Amino acid sequence: MIVVPQKALFDQPLALKGGATLPAFEIAYETYGELNAARSNAVLVCHALNASHHVAGTYADDPNNIGWWDNMVGPGKPLDTNRFFVVGNNYIGSCFGSTGPTSTNPATGKPWGADFPLVTVEDWVAAQARLADYLGIERFAAAIGGSLGAMQALQWTLSFPERVRHAIVIAATPRLTAQNIAFNEVARQAIMTDPDFHGGHYYEQGVVPRRGLRIARMIGHITYLSDDAMMEKFGRVLRGKIAPGYDFDVDFEIESYLRHQGDKFADYFDANTYLRITKALDYYDPAAEFGGDIAAAMARAKANFLIISFASDWRFAPSRSREIVRALLDNRRVLSYVENDAPHGHDAFLLDDPRYFAALRAYFGNIEL
Amino acid sequence: MIVVPQKALFDQPLALKGGATLPAFEIAYETYGELNAARSNAVLVCHALNASHHVAGTYADDPNNIGWWDNMVGPGKPLDTNRFFVVGNNYIGSCFGSTGPTSTNPATGKPWGADFPLVTVEDWVAAQARLADYLGIERFAAAIGGSLGAMQALQWTLSFPERVRHAIVIAATPRLTAQNIAFNEVARQAIMTDPDFHGGHYYEQGVVPRRGLRIARMIGHITYLSDDAMMEKFGRVLRGKIAPGYDFDVDFEIESYLRHQGDKFADYFDANTYLRITKALDYYDPAAEFGGDIAAAMARAKANFLIISFASDWRFAPSRSREIVRALLDNRRVLSYVENDAPHGHDAFLLDDPRYFAALRAYFGNIEL
Repeated sequence: MIVVPQKALFDQPLALKGGATLPAFEIAYETYGELNAARSNAVLVCHALNASHHVAGTYADDPNNIGWWDNMVGPGKPLDTNRFFVVGNNYIGSCFGSTGPTSTNPATGKPWGADFPLVTVEDWVAAQARLADYLGIERFAAAIGGSLGAMQALQWTLSFPERVRHAIVIAATPRLTAQNIAFNEVARQAIMTDPDFHGGHYYEQGVVPRRGLRIARMIGHITYLSDDAMMEKFGRVLRGKIAPGYDFDVDFEIESYLRHQGDKFADYFDANTYLRITKALDYYDPAAEFGGDIAAAMARAKANFLIISFASDWRFAPSRSREIVRALLDNRRVLSYVENDAPHGHDAFLLDDPRYFAALRAYFGNIEL
Repeated sequence: MIVVPQKALFDQPLALKGGATLPAFEIAYETYGELNAARSNAVLVCHALNASHHVAGTYADDPNNIGWWDNMVGPGKPLDTNRFFVVGNNYIGSCFGSTGPTSTNPATGKPWGADFPLVTVEDWVAAQARLADYLGIERFAAAIGGSLGAMQALQWTLSFPERVRHAIVIAATPRLTAQNIAFNEVARQAIMTDPDFHGGHYYEQGVVPRRGLRIARMIGHITYLSDDAMMEKFGRVLRGKIAPGYDFDVDFEIESYLRHQGDKFADYFDANTYLRITKALDYYDPAAEFGGDIAAAMARAKANFLIISFASDWRFAPSRSREIVRALLDNRRVLSYVENDAPHGHDAFLLDDPRYFAALRAYFGNIEL
């Protein structure tokens, strides 16, 4: 499936939750399948930390660049583009095409950098609603996402209850725990104390805070895999040696893996974006204005829900998904809940476990158009 | 209880597991209680990452400097110094008085720094045996430790089966998992990529890799507490504000706590020591020479064992302690196993949970002198 990334420009200001206003913004997006005549078959795919609008397919001039959820989205796949019109989008503040810290600040003619405002899950959803307007989609058949993407799918049911019929909320949490925030804070501190960070104005110095990005990514990878999955994949296997080196070169396979992931990430990810995404995660808490009562927060939702969690996910454990399920039950929403036993930890939402995919295929198959 | 730290000098070389030889070394130690005439009441206390020989009591000239296990060790306490002669020791490679990277390398007259060899749990135990000789202790009534200290207590039963009657192994693991190694590796990378690290030769530059040490410590603290304990202690409570700041200053209490812990640690801990301790942890695997068979590795142990784990400890979970228990059962060793439900995570071994302390008090009370 060959796809073409597109951009939509929005020249009306966007008031952000944090108080700042974006004077104008662009959203990078892709679409797969065809919008039907009734405009009733659109599905919004929301991405997590490290992904983009490139959800599925490849590019004609870059055939190895396969979308991050290509196993899920396409003709005959669980989210079947023969039936649905699927919209991938890059949230604002990201570094893959939508307006973010690497974009030009119209007020200065230079990159926004540290001056780009903090954005929230609510802001992303508000911007995505503008994209829906632009595409002529009054109401999505579904919004779907995993992890941070799931927060967006959930928030759609709260920000625009009338504009989304189904929310598919995978590997989610209604809000971060102190431990979740702690991991984000360590990653931020690693980036912000890197001497090449320059208070976020590193673009003009011609450097990037690579050391900090490496550490941030290494920490992330630990939380994406379960202890068991990591042991299964890497064990205590030494890397290219039969005995430990008694020095600080790589001894174990897991060390090599983490260094490689960190290096790769530092090559392409923007540090100012990383900082902002972790803050959006930390801040998200739809129950905050209801005294912490998630059921009260969910009262305005009108969508039907599919909630999926993974037993091996310790970042956002099934107990966190069950908080959402309980809140929906309290509100007598129509919902399905699947607790999957895939062993891959938080990353399981990206992998094609047969039971997980079967649940999604069945759910999408039952959505009326 | 006023105590006086002491040092013992050993001028016979110590051959290390990694192949290097320490030409001579000092061990800093403290003792509490009196060695009885039969020399049968000595208990060796082994410390974990961040502690020292200062196990209990205070110093006459520094009354606020209380030993790290003062709640456990002293007159009338679970490890009762009215009955036992307790020996605290600082392992070699540390930065609190025993020979380590901050010590003077006799070959150069300058600090060892990066040239200090990597040391292992086995090396620590070998050095502690020299200390036992020096103190006239042929056989310890018990060796006790938590976490990395527990590895030393366990190794005593393997390196010197005849020289320890009881091993008290708390919050332990027989070897690190890939996830455990991964956390250590991220900490090491944070330190080693800090521009102030200078390949470990930072002493002569007049700097210390503070940024890296901060990050290492912050990561450590996340793994010492359980998710639940952290939520109980910090929740999502904002620090001195009623709404998020939408900037990168401290928002949540947990952020403030981590930054504070990181700053404090960077003020006093030596980075070369930190690197070496994490490697000692990674390398420890008594089953390695037995094809991974822990029971085979434990066959030479002759001690009785008390194994204690904590349900909320996800760093070294009860399942890891049970591996040791199973290996001991296979060898028909005399053992007690306590799985404690204290909610404090890995740190629980340092806290005075009543059931935990009662188990230790009872066990020590039953040791014949």
